[in-house]
Amino acid sequence: MLGISEIVLENIFQRRSVRNFNGETVDRSMLITLLQAAMAAPSARNRQPWAFVAIKDRKTMDALANGLPFTKMLYKAGAAIVVCGDSTTELQEGAEDLWYQDAAAATQNILLAAQAMRLGAVWSALYPYSDRSGHVRNILDLPPHVSPFSIIPVGWPTGEDLPKEKYKPERIHWEKW
Amino acid sequence: MLGISEIVLENIFQRRSVRNFNGETVDRSMLITLLQAAMAAPSARNRQPWAFVAIKDRKTMDALANGLPFTKMLYKAGAAIVVCGDSTTELQEGAEDLWYQDAAAATQNILLAAQAMRLGAVWSALYPYSDRSGHVRNILDLPPHVSPFSIIPVGWPTGEDLPKEKYKPERIHWEKW
Repeated sequence: MLGISEIVLENIFQRRSVRNFNGETVDRSMLITLLQAAMAAPSARNRQPWAFVAIKDRKTMDALANGLPFTKMLYKAGAAIVVCGDSTTELQEGAEDLWYQDAAAATQNILLAAQAMRLGAVWSALYPYSDRSGHVRNILDLPPHVSPFSIIPVGWPTGEDLPKEKYKPERIHWEKW
Repeated sequence: MLGISEIVLENIFQRRSVRNFNGETVDRSMLITLLQAAMAAPSARNRQPWAFVAIKDRKTMDALANGLPFTKMLYKAGAAIVVCGDSTTELQEGAEDLWYQDAAAATQNILLAAQAMRLGAVWSALYPYSDRSGHVRNILDLPPHVSPFSIIPVGWPTGEDLPKEKYKPERIHWEKW
């Protein structure tokens, strides 16, 4: 039987970007679990500068896909999460220039939680691209103080997407370069 | 008994930033496991633009701490990992402007793997600060094509650092803002 550390590590190693979904919907309760995972991420000075738009409506997902050349998998996804930075969050001073790093940590937590729940998900970048961000801002009515960072199509994998072996020991330098 | 998804989610929820270490060293083999987790992260166009410096030498960790005002926990850490971007990695075209997002995903994977292994770790930002980055570059002899992104002190927790409850349902917007 595997111990806790083996199970967690295996989930990290097995996580793959899922771009092929079977079209079935994703329960609201599962999206909330993914968002609980997102908000458990660390953030600079614990500022938690994030906000999230969770989408299940087919028309909204199609409208998003129409204007995002690299996120066409939204057409078959069961849901989507847009991870945003909110510049009105408390604890403003310092760390403003790190909001996108905090949003990245939240995004990665969502991907790992999805893998654990046998859902599929894929990180699609919005920031720092003004064309992609502008399209998402329009469709979702984001106010000026909210910046979209990533969009994560979520759904049930067809099984076509497999994990990649990416470990390269030569990328590790010991003690100094 | 907990299922796989509960164990993985619990690890995400229980992960805390550990700043208080007992001073004991961390085995090289455990650092390699953390780096395997790091390299399992997703990256834009699967470019894997990262490189890592793993440090166990006491003198080097002290020298790093001396010039990093927010990373004094290195004095008691058992090891440290510096996550870098390497602009000479293959698959250059496109996605160059996303290397720091890939480095953030790798950093988050290290933190979650450390938590699973009962190690403690904390994300300390180097990018985009030229003073912090310059100090680390000097101490570690980083070449010009390598940019330090984060430094992660790793060690055995004293137990003082506890997880924070950060879930805020009001940060979730359904369907649109």
